[in-house]
Order: sequence, then C-alpha cells, then structure tokens
Amino acid sequence: MVKDKKTKPSKQLPLGFVDRQEKELLIRDFVISKIKEVMIKYGFQYLETPSFEYTDSIGKFLPDKDRPDQGVFSFKDESKWLSLRYDLTAPLARYVAKNYLEIPKPFKRYQLGTVWRNEKPGPGRFREFLQFDADFVGTKSLQADAELCVMISEILEKCGLSKSDYIIKISSRKITEELFKKINVSDSQQKLNILRTLDKIDRVGWEGVKQLLGEGRKDKSGDFTKGANLSLKNIETIEKEFKNKLTKTDDLEEIFKIFEDYNFSNFEFDPSVIRGLEYYTGAIFEVNLKFDVKNNKGQVIQFGSIGGGGRYDNLVNNFGNYDAPATGISVGLDRLVYALMQKKEFQTKQTKPVVICIFDKNSMKDYINLQTLLREASISAEIYPGEGKLKKQMEYANKIKSPAVILYGDDEIKSGKPTLRDLSSGKEKSIKIVELVNEIKKII
Amino acid sequence: MVKDKKTKPSKQLPLGFVDRQEKELLIRDFVISKIKEVMIKYGFQYLETPSFEYTDSIGKFLPDKDRPDQGVFSFKDESKWLSLRYDLTAPLARYVAKNYLEIPKPFKRYQLGTVWRNEKPGPGRFREFLQFDADFVGTKSLQADAELCVMISEILEKCGLSKSDYIIKISSRKITEELFKKINVSDSQQKLNILRTLDKIDRVGWEGVKQLLGEGRKDKSGDFTKGANLSLKNIETIEKEFKNKLTKTDDLEEIFKIFEDYNFSNFEFDPSVIRGLEYYTGAIFEVNLKFDVKNNKGQVIQFGSIGGGGRYDNLVNNFGNYDAPATGISVGLDRLVYALMQKKEFQTKQTKPVVICIFDKNSMKDYINLQTLLREASISAEIYPGEGKLKKQMEYANKIKSPAVILYGDDEIKSGKPTLRDLSSGKEKSIKIVELVNEIKKII
Repeated sequence: MVKDKKTKPSKQLPLGFVDRQEKELLIRDFVISKIKEVMIKYGFQYLETPSFEYTDSIGKFLPDKDRPDQGVFSFKDESKWLSLRYDLTAPLARYVAKNYLEIPKPFKRYQLGTVWRNEKPGPGRFREFLQFDADFVGTKSLQADAELCVMISEILEKCGLSKSDYIIKISSRKITEELFKKINVSDSQQKLNILRTLDKIDRVGWEGVKQLLGEGRKDKSGDFTKGANLSLKNIETIEKEFKNKLTKTDDLEEIFKIFEDYNFSNFEFDPSVIRGLEYYTGAIFEVNLKFDVKNNKGQVIQFGSIGGGGRYDNLVNNFGNYDAPATGISVGLDRLVYALMQKKEFQTKQTKPVVICIFDKNSMKDYINLQTLLREASISAEIYPGEGKLKKQMEYANKIKSPAVILYGDDEIKSGKPTLRDLSSGKEKSIKIVELVNEIKKII
Repeated sequence: MVKDKKTKPSKQLPLGFVDRQEKELLIRDFVISKIKEVMIKYGFQYLETPSFEYTDSIGKFLPDKDRPDQGVFSFKDESKWLSLRYDLTAPLARYVAKNYLEIPKPFKRYQLGTVWRNEKPGPGRFREFLQFDADFVGTKSLQADAELCVMISEILEKCGLSKSDYIIKISSRKITEELFKKINVSDSQQKLNILRTLDKIDRVGWEGVKQLLGEGRKDKSGDFTKGANLSLKNIETIEKEFKNKLTKTDDLEEIFKIFEDYNFSNFEFDPSVIRGLEYYTGAIFEVNLKFDVKNNKGQVIQFGSIGGGGRYDNLVNNFGNYDAPATGISVGLDRLVYALMQKKEFQTKQTKPVVICIFDKNSMKDYINLQTLLREASISAEIYPGEGKLKKQMEYANKIKSPAVILYGDDEIKSGKPTLRDLSSGKEKSIKIVELVNEIKKII
C-alpha cells in the first residue's frame, strides 16, 4: 500500500485550551448539582441558548474591545456573521426580545454554558470558560439585586465554603455617574474609558490610574497606553472622591436594608468595584474569595473575583422598545473549581473499577458472570480490557488505582472460590462467590 | 444625549441553532445522570477535551467532506488554523498521542460534549449537537467491542426503554474489505466512495445506489451526482453479495459468542450498516430506535439511528507510531432526548416556585421570613419578583405554573396566619405559619 507522504499533525492543544481530568470534573459536577438545587429552590427557570448567535445580536459589550469582531470568535456564514458567545447575558437579551410575548414577566432564568474569548493566547489565559448565570428580567425591584447576592452566598456555602472564605463586594454605577456630573463628562465613550481605567486600580495602583486618566502610561515592557486626557483638576477630584470611599446611593441603601431583612451580612460596600462592561446601570457586585490559592508554580496568588454582575436596565432595548429592566450574576465555574480543589478535600466517591484478570479467553463466560454479579451490586468492575500477561494486568490495575483485583484461574473456577487481592494492603484471600460482594464492599 | 443612528440587531437565531427549554433540559439531565452511573459501574474514566483543536490534529474524517475546512467551523489563529471539534473521537486520538506515556494501557474514557458541523443550514438540520462517547484505546480484545453494545443497551434501559424499543445493528468493515478484494478495488479513496454510496441504501434504494456505483445519478431536483464508475459486472457482484446478506467474519463470530456469554440478544447482524467514516477497521455498530417518533409537524418519521461506532485500529497512528488499536461508541443525546420525550411520560419533579405576593414593600422582612421558612424546608419559593398589583402577580403565578400563592397582607401578618391559595383547585385556606410547610407539601 502506498502511504501518503505527509507531515504528522500536531499532538498539542492550541494555547488557551486545556484537557480536564476526572478529579476536576467530579468536583465541577458536585458544584453544578448544588447550583441546580439552589436554582430550583429559588424558582429560576432552566434555559439553554446555543453557542452561536448572529454577531450583531450579541454586540460589542466586551471590556476593552472596540470592534465587534475583536475578542470573539466569528465566522462569515452565507451573508451574515456568526459569533461564539462571549458571555451568557447578551444571548439572554436576544432571547427575551425574541420571545417577549411568551415569557412570564418578570422572567427568572439560569443557564450553565461555555463561553469563548478570542484573546491573545498566553500562559494561564484561557479562551474557553464554563459559566453559570442567573438573571431577573423585567423588574426594577431591588429585592432582585439583593437576592442574587444572597443566592450566590448560599451556593458557595453549599459547596463547602464558610463565611470567612468569601465576600460579596458591592457598589453602584450611579456613584460613578454622579462623579461624571461633577467633572462634566457626558460622552458615553469617554465615560467608558474612565470606568475601565478605574477598574485597573488593583493592577496598576493609583499612580498608574492617574497616568491613564491623564496623558497615558508606559508599562514595564515599554508599551505606551494612551490616556483619557482628563485635566489635572478632574483627576484630583476623582482620586479624592474615591479615597473618601464616596457616598452610598439610594439604590444601595435599599439593597443593604433588604440584606438586613435576609440576615445577610457577608458583603461590603466598595466603590472601587467597577466592572468594565458598559451595559450596567445600577448596583454592581463582585464575588471574591478570601483564602489562599496557589498558581501552578505553587506560588500563593491574589485570586480575587470568581464572578459578579449587576443591574442592566437598557440591554434588551438594543433590540427594540421593550420594558425589560434586568439584573444578573455570573460565576466562572472553572475558576471556582480551581480554588475549591485547593480549599477542601472533596470526598469524591471511589469510582475506580475492581479488575477481573484474564487467564484464559475460553473462560470469558466465567469472568463475565463475576463482572455482572459485581455490577448488579453497584460495584464498579471490569474484565481486564486488554490481552496481556498477568504482570501487565497487575500493572494496569495499579496504574488506574483500582482498589482490588480478582484472580479467577482454572483452579479457582473449579473450586468456585476466586482470589481477591486488596491492592492497598497487598493481602490476598480466597472467597466464596456468594460472599464476594460483601468482601469487596469492605475494601472500597 | 445624541443617539447613534443604527439599525436594530436581529432577534433571531442563525439557522441550525436552537434555544432549549426546561422540560427538555431536565430529561437530558436525567439521561446524563444514568450515563454517568453506568460509566462508573463499567470503569470508564471521565475526561474532557476542549472545543477547539488545531485543524490538522482532527483531520478530515467527516463523511462526504473532502476538504479539511468543509463541514467544520475553523479560524485562522496567529499562523495556524483552529477548528471546533466535529466529533469526540478525533480529539481523543490527539489526547492519547499527547499523553501516551502517562495514560493506562488499555485506556477507557468517556466524554460528554458539544460538537459542531458547519453544514448548509436548512429546516431540521442542526449545526450543534451534544454527544456522549465511550472508547477503549490500546486493546484488540473483541470483548471491548462487545461490551460497548451491552453498555449502551444498559443505558437505554435505565432511561426507560424496553428491549422492543431499540436494537443494536452490527456489521464489520472486514465484510466490505473482502468485497473489495472480489472486485479488485484497492485504492483507498475509491473504497471510501463505494462505502459512502452503500451507506445511502436507506435513502436512495438499490436502484439509486447502482447508479451511483456506476456513472452517476440525477436526483429529483435535477442535480447530478458523479458515480464511482464501477463496471456493470462489479456492481452486480456487490448487489448479489449484499442481497445474500454476505457472510459473517471471524471478528463478528467472536463478538456474537461474547454476546451470548453476556446473555445479550438485542442485536442483529446487518451488513447494510456501513457508517461513512473512513477510519473504521473492524466491527461497526449502530443503535436504532424502533418506536414511532413524530417530527415537529406531527408526522411519524423513520427516526432510525441515535448513534453508533466501531473499531478504529489506526486512527492514533496519524500522530506517529503508537500501539493504540481502539473501539468506541457515540450517542447523539439531543436526538435520544427528542425521542424519549415522545416515548414516555417522564415524571420530572415539580420545580415551580410557590409565589409570595407583595402587598406593601415595608413588609418585605415578613415576606422574606416566609420565603426562608419554605426554602429551608426545600420548597421552591419566591417573593413575587416585580412591583405590580395583585392581579398582575396572580397572572404571573399562573403563567409560571406555580402550584400555589401565599397572600400575606397586613391582617394576615397581624394574625400570623397567611392565606394559601392552591392554584390548581382555586381553593384558599388560612393557615398558621407553623403548619404552612406541611400544607404546601400536600399540594406540590
């Protein structure tokens, strides 16, 4: 046979994408089961929108992206552009507009789904995330905003965190709106520039922010970022207001009152919470973890936010004239799971199979009968899935961390007593078939 | 404020993509929970590969697609092309090659994940599917092939199907290989053309297949499809062999023997099972539903296959010289769920919240206390999430199919006896708070 001359394809993954292993997936399943439990209790409807939307439907709401095709994965399809969703909020707005006459008002829905960001790949920068979102659409009631914070706290605690492990930081877009009035900024693009600059306090500090509010800033690598060109006086006003912790607004006063009614106190007012999305109009919140998390080099890092959200009263109106004020919250599940894996020893159930070794292919029926016996007792079990010698079979069983192997050769079959070898103690025992299930249950 | 003059974005979804509602999602969750249960019992490892792969890593294995960028969604990224996976098998081969030294051999893994096909959109043609795959890699043992069929049957029965509702059809690529020898075809592209033509028997009948094996065929719309240009004699040989049901091969004889050992008989030998993928090398199977399924116009349709698979001993070798003979099975979960929704009344648990009506915002604390009481008893409950009058609140409760509303106005608060209105019977009852949970549990 003539073989095509061709170069071998890459075995690697593109940067920003990862394979996920069983331990992480089992913890993620646990977190998702807790989310669903809470969602049902709180009366949210379960919905799923597809991965793709028309590019113009999900708009250009990504922080730091000015062109619609920047930051998202897009395809030309027939005559229109499609994009992979970059969040679950923009598709929800499209869904509400599309189904406005049919949906209950207010409309409460939750969704779990992957989102994609077409960002420049780099170490630790992922381009695919699993998100959980819960939103209220069609209500101005601040009880909704308050309940989202209470709800997310309940989810985190059901996942094993205590009150000292996390905090909900809360602010309001109204605070920055008042600041804009003070410094006479009314242009929406200029406002967005200032918001996104203020959102960088954690990363570049006040000195960096002041440069970025002014003429611009050169970073360590020598790259220059153009600034917002505010006057020195206005920059000083902003700094002063911020350092004085600003004043709470009416909406926050009401939300804090509702928190009291809920007996919920695991939050703090923090005007430095900005979040870069342009569509927020009122309260904004951020979910922060407070315990130490290490990066993959073993260094403790400032892990920070695993999610957040806020009120967006005008987003659905991009599609027309709808009465759909809304508020919602998103959690990045991969980040949450990453932190949880370090926080707590999750007792994920033993799922590794007992291995039934093969001595003679002609005895397959006997092996299958044993396997069926164990599986019917809900014991994970498998006949060795290959064709090697006993030594290779034992190596396999150890490699998959099997709790035990069963040796069932000719003599054992004749006597009806398979040998059970406990792989953690190394002890062997000859056992009557009728007692096998009980003996194995002692081990696993 | 100056408003941008812009056209409104589309509220529609691109063709081939759909929003999925709660009922479908709950049944899908149920199916997935059964799959996971069986996967643990059978000792498969849980793995997740990402949505994107390098385009060259997942190759051109789609049926009826000759160019690597046809049928898949691809992006240029820096200097290389990325594609959204079109199945879970090609990424598994990449995973095995990448991690060959670390993985157990044989390697058994399962995965649940979305796959994408960039096909011409049309009614009922989806471009995004949820798949379940289970594979054995690194084994030639036919016990593996047999077990996949037994396993998928157990999953279907756990989902509520009986033996008469489905059948596993089984054949072998070796049968067609022998046929190719008989008619002297050795070119692999020509073989693939013939296989894909034979795979069309169900759709175009023997007359159509014979035209396609010969010079070509004009369909109803007048479109002409070029044929495989076999001689009349060879076409007749193929037809004769097929109609004589061909003969079983050694591999199938062995698999059928193992089925007997498993007491598994819900299969049939069917040489017309071809499956268009070029990478199969041995046994091939197809999972078929036998009960009536209706399309969205209410017409009973030939629903056919919900999945299938087979042995692919050389796929991993595209990445280099690996000893990784393999066999696997895929199930299209959206199709399975679509059929199950019609087959069986799934008793999905009541998940709609009891609605606590709002009379006076100043009583929020009282409403919240009631809500907490119910939620702590695991009753789905919500304070009406909007700000309307009682009539609007009742309309909302009916719209979401709430089982009951609670009326807790000034008088009720004073007397400590909220009114519970059962929304299915319309009956109202004044109830002491201490008895509220029990009364509601009678209704839901």
